[in-house]
Amino acid sequence: MSLPPFFDDYLHFLRFASVSTDDRYREHVHACAAWLSGYLQKAGLKSEIHATPGHPIVTAHSPRHPAKPTVLIYGHYDVQPADPLDLWLHPPFEPHVENGKIYARGSTDNKGQIFSHICGVRQLFESGGQLPVNVVFLVEGEEEVGSDHLAPFLEAHREQLQCDVVVISDTGMIAPGVPTFTYGLRGIAAMEIFLQGPSKDLHSGIFGGAVANPLTELCRLAATLHGPDGKIAVEGFYDGILPLQDWERGAWKTCGMDDAELKRITGAPELQGEAGYTSLERTWARPTCELNGLTGGYQGQGTKTVLPSQASAKLTFRLVPGQEPARILDLVETHLRGRCPPSITLRVERGHSGGAYYVDPHGPYGQAAQDALRAVFPGKEPVLIREGGSIPIVADFKKILGVDTLLLGLALPDAGIHSSNECFPVEHLELGMRLNRALLGALAVPRNG
Amino acid sequence: MSLPPFFDDYLHFLRFASVSTDDRYREHVHACAAWLSGYLQKAGLKSEIHATPGHPIVTAHSPRHPAKPTVLIYGHYDVQPADPLDLWLHPPFEPHVENGKIYARGSTDNKGQIFSHICGVRQLFESGGQLPVNVVFLVEGEEEVGSDHLAPFLEAHREQLQCDVVVISDTGMIAPGVPTFTYGLRGIAAMEIFLQGPSKDLHSGIFGGAVANPLTELCRLAATLHGPDGKIAVEGFYDGILPLQDWERGAWKTCGMDDAELKRITGAPELQGEAGYTSLERTWARPTCELNGLTGGYQGQGTKTVLPSQASAKLTFRLVPGQEPARILDLVETHLRGRCPPSITLRVERGHSGGAYYVDPHGPYGQAAQDALRAVFPGKEPVLIREGGSIPIVADFKKILGVDTLLLGLALPDAGIHSSNECFPVEHLELGMRLNRALLGALAVPRNG
Repeated sequence: MSLPPFFDDYLHFLRFASVSTDDRYREHVHACAAWLSGYLQKAGLKSEIHATPGHPIVTAHSPRHPAKPTVLIYGHYDVQPADPLDLWLHPPFEPHVENGKIYARGSTDNKGQIFSHICGVRQLFESGGQLPVNVVFLVEGEEEVGSDHLAPFLEAHREQLQCDVVVISDTGMIAPGVPTFTYGLRGIAAMEIFLQGPSKDLHSGIFGGAVANPLTELCRLAATLHGPDGKIAVEGFYDGILPLQDWERGAWKTCGMDDAELKRITGAPELQGEAGYTSLERTWARPTCELNGLTGGYQGQGTKTVLPSQASAKLTFRLVPGQEPARILDLVETHLRGRCPPSITLRVERGHSGGAYYVDPHGPYGQAAQDALRAVFPGKEPVLIREGGSIPIVADFKKILGVDTLLLGLALPDAGIHSSNECFPVEHLELGMRLNRALLGALAVPRNG
Repeated sequence: MSLPPFFDDYLHFLRFASVSTDDRYREHVHACAAWLSGYLQKAGLKSEIHATPGHPIVTAHSPRHPAKPTVLIYGHYDVQPADPLDLWLHPPFEPHVENGKIYARGSTDNKGQIFSHICGVRQLFESGGQLPVNVVFLVEGEEEVGSDHLAPFLEAHREQLQCDVVVISDTGMIAPGVPTFTYGLRGIAAMEIFLQGPSKDLHSGIFGGAVANPLTELCRLAATLHGPDGKIAVEGFYDGILPLQDWERGAWKTCGMDDAELKRITGAPELQGEAGYTSLERTWARPTCELNGLTGGYQGQGTKTVLPSQASAKLTFRLVPGQEPARILDLVETHLRGRCPPSITLRVERGHSGGAYYVDPHGPYGQAAQDALRAVFPGKEPVLIREGGSIPIVADFKKILGVDTLLLGLALPDAGIHSSNECFPVEHLELGMRLNRALLGALAVPRNG
């Protein structure tokens, strides 16, 4: 297989362990931002690194032609933690190429996808071409931790970032070879809960039976969050949700992902979810309550007969259009506090959050995106989907810059993003470059809004 | 304060990090056994180290006089893990003396108590005295992990270990200065459960809602183990339990430990337990189901939006007379399997177990023990209690050697055993030596059985 252009540069990008959630990787995150800015400069753009109270934001601009529309391409150079490391077949930050795929943390999410946009522009410049639109790159380092400093940055740089539309490749393709346009995303709200029982760990023989066990109480509390029908049992949780439309439920029935395939990809013994909805509806258009981490007591080898003093759980909620993150966290906190026994002190810490997003796929920019997909996948009609993941800043682009966002992702369902052995097909790198050029071309044509 | 004899030797004993449950401490455990055997030899006894498939067993004998009764003194030189280390004010294996207490892992459980018995014998020999009984020391290195190799050792060394009664100082005093005789112990049964959902960690946005979350299912499953009244909701769990006798319930009401004191010691905001029983009854004479550890998902800093593939929990059950450990584990496994959804694969691993113990406090050996306590605590009447902890080998001594066991402990309620900042009063070291001599004297007198 011949390697796509700029392949070594892509591998270089992947070698930065730019894990944004963990302070121990801070230097790697900053080194990655510096390298990326230099690379955008080399691609022919004017780039800057902007410090924030968190990780830096990298921007790059082509020269502004007042007559041309402006397209802002957003991505992120930070990645999810790679642990548990023992599930990786190769070290996550030493890219490994096998069977036409590159294995590395961030290979798909989002380094591979944002890199192919950058290289689309670079290729055009190197072949002596002219950009059909003005281009602004905005690549942040905190997407995986909630993009806390992006909205203030948008506010402060409204003028420099002024644009007609935002393009993001951070979503998925429904299947290999199927052009996919994503018109909806779930939102997210995060929370961590800490249960304190006795003031120190106790001997479970001496005190067990007379003192509440925070681990047991955590389980009892967490178990109240779902009903037996898989619905979330928090009062008011579903209030105000925009119901699924008939055309969506109909279209998704034939869009190629069935339960057998989902079982194959996930390896789950059986699927499970909210009664009354299909698996796609459950993941694309229904909210969830997930435990992302449980911690408490003795976790070493063997047995320790301890009655632990503390237990904690990390929770996130995926939200759908009509749900407001802060209100959801209020409802959940009220639910938990109302059920926590007096033997336990409950502390709730709120994490990042972001609203769900929905854009009309039949509007003018939606049509341009679909035209670009038709050009890159000749003879294939784009599939219209929503996605279960969250890109909270899409709502910010609408609110602060006043523009819609087009989601044209290149992630495959089995890319292993946020999981072990994340990978990206080598050929998607060049596909992404072609999509970039087709899209910028389609967006240069004026349309009726 | 003047230090008791052999104090430096005691500190030396405490410096061995003889944590039996964790392979990383294996060398420390073995070094501790070697030192202890040498020390017993120095004390005037004939000592041997016996290899087992686990950690070594140390024995020591005084010369056998056929006319004298033989007393076997049992103890253990292994200790609980010290983690979480950040809760210790001083390093757990560097003994620290402050306010008349020695702070170190094992200072009370069990090094301090077995060491005072050894020194009682050593003192007698050094002052030119004669032992009133034959003495056998049996000090093992696996008490904190279930004493797996002790019963086979008793079987194999029945003759050398032949004795009239066993003495153990590994229990507690009801309060400082109160002579305490323990006539009952809870048993224990351990289990670890592993829940596997998807075959690898998944992105909670892409798959969340359609795939069961093992953390959530673990909580839902664990929450079924208790009813709202604090009773264990496993069918058949309470079958066959010997009911508490009226004299016990009556005596315990006045034995000095009340709920205010229990709250003070444990720091629990409120007490909690099985309906219909007092705190002492709950800890001394009622069974429990405790989660000792919960593990699953992301435990690092910040958020990881993962739908984890695995979750696990360590459980132990404290058992009371009438409950058979293997049967209890069967019942719990049946309970869990019957409630585990098809979306989850459940694996159950059984750990160590041991039956509860009950000895008649009014029999001849019980009377001798109480006489010894009266001699060491002049003017005070011994308090008769049960204990919530487990010393499974007490049942083995009865079954294999055919003898009863006397439990005369010197642990204070706030000794921090199995917890952080474990401590032992300096004066209890000498108290233990005096108790040893008084007890051996009392046991030399023939009584009607």
